[in-house]
Amino acid sequence: MKQDFLYATAARSMALQIRTGVLKAGDRLPSIRTLCSEQGFSINTAKRIYLELEKQALIESRPQSGYFVSNRKQRRLPEPEPSSPMPVKNSGMPNQLISKVYATMGEKDLTLFSIGVPSDKLLPLSTLNREMTRAMRQLPGNGSSYEALQGNSRLRQAIARRSFFWGGRLSQEDIITTAGGMNALSFCMMAISRPGNTIAVESPVYPGILQLARSLGLRVLELPTHPETGIEIGALKKMIHRIDLCLLITNFGNPLGSLMPDAHKKELVRLLETHQIPLIEDDLYGDLYFGKSRPQCCKAYDRSGNVLLCSSVSKTLAPGYRVGWVAPGRFKEQLLNLKYVHSVSATAITQETVARFFENNRYDHHLRQLRHQLQLNRDRYTDAIASSFPGGTKISRPQGGLALWVALDPAIDTAVLYERAIRQKISIAPGRMFTLQDQYNHCMRLCIGLPWTDELERKLKQLGKITAALL
Amino acid sequence: MKQDFLYATAARSMALQIRTGVLKAGDRLPSIRTLCSEQGFSINTAKRIYLELEKQALIESRPQSGYFVSNRKQRRLPEPEPSSPMPVKNSGMPNQLISKVYATMGEKDLTLFSIGVPSDKLLPLSTLNREMTRAMRQLPGNGSSYEALQGNSRLRQAIARRSFFWGGRLSQEDIITTAGGMNALSFCMMAISRPGNTIAVESPVYPGILQLARSLGLRVLELPTHPETGIEIGALKKMIHRIDLCLLITNFGNPLGSLMPDAHKKELVRLLETHQIPLIEDDLYGDLYFGKSRPQCCKAYDRSGNVLLCSSVSKTLAPGYRVGWVAPGRFKEQLLNLKYVHSVSATAITQETVARFFENNRYDHHLRQLRHQLQLNRDRYTDAIASSFPGGTKISRPQGGLALWVALDPAIDTAVLYERAIRQKISIAPGRMFTLQDQYNHCMRLCIGLPWTDELERKLKQLGKITAALL
Repeated sequence: MKQDFLYATAARSMALQIRTGVLKAGDRLPSIRTLCSEQGFSINTAKRIYLELEKQALIESRPQSGYFVSNRKQRRLPEPEPSSPMPVKNSGMPNQLISKVYATMGEKDLTLFSIGVPSDKLLPLSTLNREMTRAMRQLPGNGSSYEALQGNSRLRQAIARRSFFWGGRLSQEDIITTAGGMNALSFCMMAISRPGNTIAVESPVYPGILQLARSLGLRVLELPTHPETGIEIGALKKMIHRIDLCLLITNFGNPLGSLMPDAHKKELVRLLETHQIPLIEDDLYGDLYFGKSRPQCCKAYDRSGNVLLCSSVSKTLAPGYRVGWVAPGRFKEQLLNLKYVHSVSATAITQETVARFFENNRYDHHLRQLRHQLQLNRDRYTDAIASSFPGGTKISRPQGGLALWVALDPAIDTAVLYERAIRQKISIAPGRMFTLQDQYNHCMRLCIGLPWTDELERKLKQLGKITAALL
Repeated sequence: MKQDFLYATAARSMALQIRTGVLKAGDRLPSIRTLCSEQGFSINTAKRIYLELEKQALIESRPQSGYFVSNRKQRRLPEPEPSSPMPVKNSGMPNQLISKVYATMGEKDLTLFSIGVPSDKLLPLSTLNREMTRAMRQLPGNGSSYEALQGNSRLRQAIARRSFFWGGRLSQEDIITTAGGMNALSFCMMAISRPGNTIAVESPVYPGILQLARSLGLRVLELPTHPETGIEIGALKKMIHRIDLCLLITNFGNPLGSLMPDAHKKELVRLLETHQIPLIEDDLYGDLYFGKSRPQCCKAYDRSGNVLLCSSVSKTLAPGYRVGWVAPGRFKEQLLNLKYVHSVSATAITQETVARFFENNRYDHHLRQLRHQLQLNRDRYTDAIASSFPGGTKISRPQGGLALWVALDPAIDTAVLYERAIRQKISIAPGRMFTLQDQYNHCMRLCIGLPWTDELERKLKQLGKITAALL
């Protein structure tokens, strides 16, 4: 156990030195022997440190020469261009494509790069189980009784406390729990829109948002979006008089992974406030930042209650619990009424379990580990793709979240790639799923929430070969 | 333990003899001494048998004479008249009244006759806890992973098996799970209606249904309803060309408790099929019958998939679990899409827990006990009301379910009664909550799902006094 700890800690701090540039590409590393004599490691521990860093493609061993920091940057792929959807016209929802991709989600022997949640191997299952058992014992009626309409107060208290991290000052009275994040978005959209209204969203955008908007009879306006900084505020300004509401994932949007800078957030909130256009902000990935600190939310700049902040634990802790929430600002009465009318209340036991997990820094401890894994995966995926995909491949460099957006040579149709890959037990999410327009046909989203293994790396490289064969 | 068993069994069979008329009102019962010598009971057991029957007001002791069957029937109150709502005009939703009543639901020291669920004292909590612990261990990701879109297959299998009891022949493919019963109704109404459509319902009707219809922009047509047999099919026929969809609780409707006869159900299904008007049938009380066998559902007569059958375990097992389902007939694709778009999936752990509970006859065993308690409560409530409420009081005689509908002297406003009663820590559901029209102001719904105690009886009689003081 002590050995394990030593090796992992040392590997992590050396990885940090490489990422922060203390150790530079091509730098020679101390030999195994030096590592042992200088740092007091056993031979085995020293070897494991370098093995781990090699796995992450951060270092490489050269025969008869020793270990060196890899030249990752030289192999870095370019980022995709900012998107430029048409200002209005929709080609329609690619329902068949979506159904096809979702239908394979349950198959066990597939490598699901198409999925949008972290693998349960990255989740703190035993702690969750323990807390659920305790929650069961302590809830009124052992969790069989209705939860209060606004939701579990212990959970709302914990969410309010955590609002500090994104610049918020929520109290538990500001928060309503929901049956997961999509349920929160659904209630928000029902509360503030009528059929025929126009909703502005990122492009590419999570298909569930498009489907929800369509199901409520809304027109969708896809906005030009930069893979690093999110929607172009200028484009939004030009269209502002045609928009009735706005829905954005400002932190690590799905699928692009873009992070809206604070100045943009502030400007956006003011702009929408001036025009009395409500903003639904979906912050479900905000805790999954790879940088030094958690990004702020637009809600932090909201002074008039015009921002409805939604989130959940589906991307960080337990998708199957269906625990989400909304801080609906000036729309609280409408939200409470919708929650009551459409669902009476949310599941008692899973809310209490999450509330308990949020206490005693358990959640922060888990998030640190999860972020570390996801950040490593982003780099490992990127390296594997750089080394095996054909020329012309571009890839996003998200600073957080669960997704990579890969743009291939425009000659490649990822709907066809999907068909080829699935035959080899690999599932991807084709780009056309993420828009109502005829675009992104050469793009795909890959989930980085799978545990890294040799097999996974092999599958990624296999996907590169299948892609190359389409050219 | 053996003593307990003996006394309870004997009391139950004697109660049955009284209810079925084998023992008639005024009949003299064997003396305690005779009971001991003839049946081999101890004096204590024999006394407990009679004490229990006295508590239930089935027998009474007359000083120096012995025990006699009570003259319950002589004190029986008349049933309320069939309802006769206006054919069209709505006065609007009594939102303030509803909010006021719901706001007190969470207060611990109130006697909540206003509530619509069984007390957790009547629920099999320890078995549910055990099954939840097992469910947690066996689910993929210990319940942290997304459930399949259509829902837990073990649960759907169990629901399909149980369809035999109400005359159905469902397979698990016909069933979609939802986050509770209202969520099922909400998806059904969204699937088959557009704003401006007219929905036909019972009158009086559960307020949640009125609120849901309103929230989706529907017009509501309240149908004349008989407290014993449900809606008047003739009235429905007359209005048929103005109706776009129909939502009925055919078995033990809430609040009237009426049970639609099989012949009416058959006729109703044919009528609506002919006019291609979908029927949402909410069967959430169907398992709570007091008669010999479970009543059938309209769905049993459905040959074209025109009936969307909804139900849940919220009234029988665990309101806080939020486990419901729908058998949507020909609307399955729409329902699946709505479930996906508005909620992604339902909570995994509570579905699996209910699925496990449904196996090995546990649910039937529990239902037998629950029905017995509810039937006893119906009689005890009725007796307590008959003995303490002012003249002019009428009361429903439901053959199942959780509610009594009480019509008071028309001079009494139950909104005022609510205010008076709440000061004495008693909560009722005023009649005006159950309609969009200006009617039922002298009526109220009382929940019979509370455990019977001397205190509860005292509270009921206290409510009678408060009522009398309003005349």
